[in-house]
Amino acid sequence: MKLKNLLYAQSGGVTSVINTTAAGVIETARASKKIGKVYAGKNGISGILKEELIDTSQESDTQIKNLKYTPGGAFGSCRFKLKDPKENPNEYLRLLEIFKSYNIGYFLYNGGGDSQDTTNKIANFTQASGFPVQCIGIPKTVDNDLPYTDNCPGFGSVAKYIAVSTREAALDVESMSDTSTKVFIMEVMGRHAGWIAASSSLASEENDGPPHIILFPEKKLLQRKFLKKVKQTVSRNGYCVIVVSEGLRDNKGNFLSDSGKIDAFGHKQLGGVAPRIAEMVQIKLGYKCHWSVPDYLQRSARHLSSKVDFNQAFAVGKSAVEFCLNGDSSVMPVIVRLKTKKYSWKIGKVKLSKVANIEKKLPSSYITKDGFNVTKKFRTYIEPLILGEAYLPFKNGLPINANLKNKLVKKRLKKFS
Amino acid sequence: MKLKNLLYAQSGGVTSVINTTAAGVIETARASKKIGKVYAGKNGISGILKEELIDTSQESDTQIKNLKYTPGGAFGSCRFKLKDPKENPNEYLRLLEIFKSYNIGYFLYNGGGDSQDTTNKIANFTQASGFPVQCIGIPKTVDNDLPYTDNCPGFGSVAKYIAVSTREAALDVESMSDTSTKVFIMEVMGRHAGWIAASSSLASEENDGPPHIILFPEKKLLQRKFLKKVKQTVSRNGYCVIVVSEGLRDNKGNFLSDSGKIDAFGHKQLGGVAPRIAEMVQIKLGYKCHWSVPDYLQRSARHLSSKVDFNQAFAVGKSAVEFCLNGDSSVMPVIVRLKTKKYSWKIGKVKLSKVANIEKKLPSSYITKDGFNVTKKFRTYIEPLILGEAYLPFKNGLPINANLKNKLVKKRLKKFS
Repeated sequence: MKLKNLLYAQSGGVTSVINTTAAGVIETARASKKIGKVYAGKNGISGILKEELIDTSQESDTQIKNLKYTPGGAFGSCRFKLKDPKENPNEYLRLLEIFKSYNIGYFLYNGGGDSQDTTNKIANFTQASGFPVQCIGIPKTVDNDLPYTDNCPGFGSVAKYIAVSTREAALDVESMSDTSTKVFIMEVMGRHAGWIAASSSLASEENDGPPHIILFPEKKLLQRKFLKKVKQTVSRNGYCVIVVSEGLRDNKGNFLSDSGKIDAFGHKQLGGVAPRIAEMVQIKLGYKCHWSVPDYLQRSARHLSSKVDFNQAFAVGKSAVEFCLNGDSSVMPVIVRLKTKKYSWKIGKVKLSKVANIEKKLPSSYITKDGFNVTKKFRTYIEPLILGEAYLPFKNGLPINANLKNKLVKKRLKKFS
Repeated sequence: MKLKNLLYAQSGGVTSVINTTAAGVIETARASKKIGKVYAGKNGISGILKEELIDTSQESDTQIKNLKYTPGGAFGSCRFKLKDPKENPNEYLRLLEIFKSYNIGYFLYNGGGDSQDTTNKIANFTQASGFPVQCIGIPKTVDNDLPYTDNCPGFGSVAKYIAVSTREAALDVESMSDTSTKVFIMEVMGRHAGWIAASSSLASEENDGPPHIILFPEKKLLQRKFLKKVKQTVSRNGYCVIVVSEGLRDNKGNFLSDSGKIDAFGHKQLGGVAPRIAEMVQIKLGYKCHWSVPDYLQRSARHLSSKVDFNQAFAVGKSAVEFCLNGDSSVMPVIVRLKTKKYSWKIGKVKLSKVANIEKKLPSSYITKDGFNVTKKFRTYIEPLILGEAYLPFKNGLPINANLKNKLVKKRLKKFS
């Protein structure tokens, strides 16, 4: 019997270790000898619909290994949500056509909450159609907002990057604060969940900072209380380091990054929370401020990935293939924290139907009463996730990254519209 | 005869390796047995005037070694310029009082152009006063704008950080560009000199990017030409990565970061060039943009320092002490590039009077004709400066930093006002 092929694709915002997961998938499939070709969808589901498939068998083992050192999504990712199959079955029928044509037995979709929903719908559709494809979701998100998994691959590395960067910048600010900048504000990602903002707390071993103040998306900004805290901090320490989540809202529930200004062309002006907070502090308290918005730098900083995160990212890719060989479908590997004294973990499994479209926010037990810092409970949770350095090889002073051919297979189907 | 003491201080914006220079000074002085105590001025010259001196003999060899892994200015830095001694001799007389009281024979000031000017004035003043103190300037600036030295300690590391970050973020943007962000803009430091902006070019081995466009402070922004280039780049590659210097000016010579807006309290609103460029691209071309402002992160990223820079930062500290023992004064160690096939360097010496207040901008031969990229000549210059990784020890997932006592000596002089 001809071996079934595997189709892997990346979806949503990328991470510094999503390609490590891809390497886990490809290396495990190659080693199994039970899987035919591994195809990768170009730009996620959006490219698959266009029959843009990359034949990864064209890539050498060395280049697949190099994927582990390469941030971004090596096959391209997308922001694209399939409609409901009842409303619009066309996209699902097209996928079925692709799956049949390329003898796909396994579909692995590597993404966040939306992507798991997509994967589940595809699994159900192929099942009902009489051409069942084993569909496995693989978790990935820097936002750490997926349920059922103890943490999400990608998060530990961004947490490490933010913790180290906060520490480094704080040392800089502290040394200049006598005659220069008094307040430093760093804006971090995480959308509606404060996991990344909270991870900055690791920069200091005690909760008296830096960072001295963390502004979470789970807590509305109370301006007077906040400014009082800034003033107190500068009086006591000579400087103040603030980490703010991009999803921070004011007391009316509006995003601070939404400046409310509309330009001549009707576009909303681009914001940024950090400059808004800096403006507020400078105007109300008169302190010299500096602000930083690392943006994509934080989620692509493969040079500073966490070893634990790296290992877990590889493991979820490997396990997804093992699930396939085990006959599973409509499931997602999750990271399970074991009840050991020293941190340890294993891979578990959850049904996709449970995961889909749930957003796990920072529990209130992880935020201190005053709303500006994290609790000991949170520190216990996060400390292991940034452990270890996933060093990568450098050449000429720069990281070695994968250099894939990413050759598309010759199209054999009609164009999809 | 009682050994003369040494006074070391840090000045101006700090770097990821200025403390490596401090370690070079202290370790060399300790090993020489010819120098008494090494004092460090708290917060540079500003603390010295207040008789805020740190007795570094209180610090263990281990902590001095840890300085090499610690960004920021471990003894505090300052933005403070001494007035001309002819106009206002008070500050100089105070320094003389300090020097005499603490038996200072050597004054080492670690900073940029302004600081070298200060050091030179102090040298001349002590000479004329009959209590000659050997004054040595030690170069430091991420801006790389000091003359006579091939490069400045601190610059190689920020160049490496910017090159790696540009590469990493570009991989991220590229993978998302099909359905999401098309243009990514990163703002870098460097004030009026484009050295740091230019260093981003190292992210790709060829000049066709990313970064596809570099906006230098040496070139005024011609909006139409720039937007045309952005459009061409997106058409060809699907995305465009732009690196912009904080000191970019428009065609009238105004800083782009100066929004021109005054708030209700009469303060200028805080800007940022990257969001301004993003706004321009979004409005005029309609592309989805993301922007990043690493700010202090770039100059404090000790976790990604260049080994060459690290070695040179240590060497200038070491040489400054050797110059003292050699009887030198009013000089600064410089980095001299040797005419060898493989990059090599040695420490040279220049008179402070030559260095003071000169700003070395990016030569026009380093910028391509269209003004948006660097030439091969620049690449030849910069490539060696980011070589090697100055790895540092981690504990619990975070860098080990020096934990100094920074104990101030008991004051014995009258308060200075």
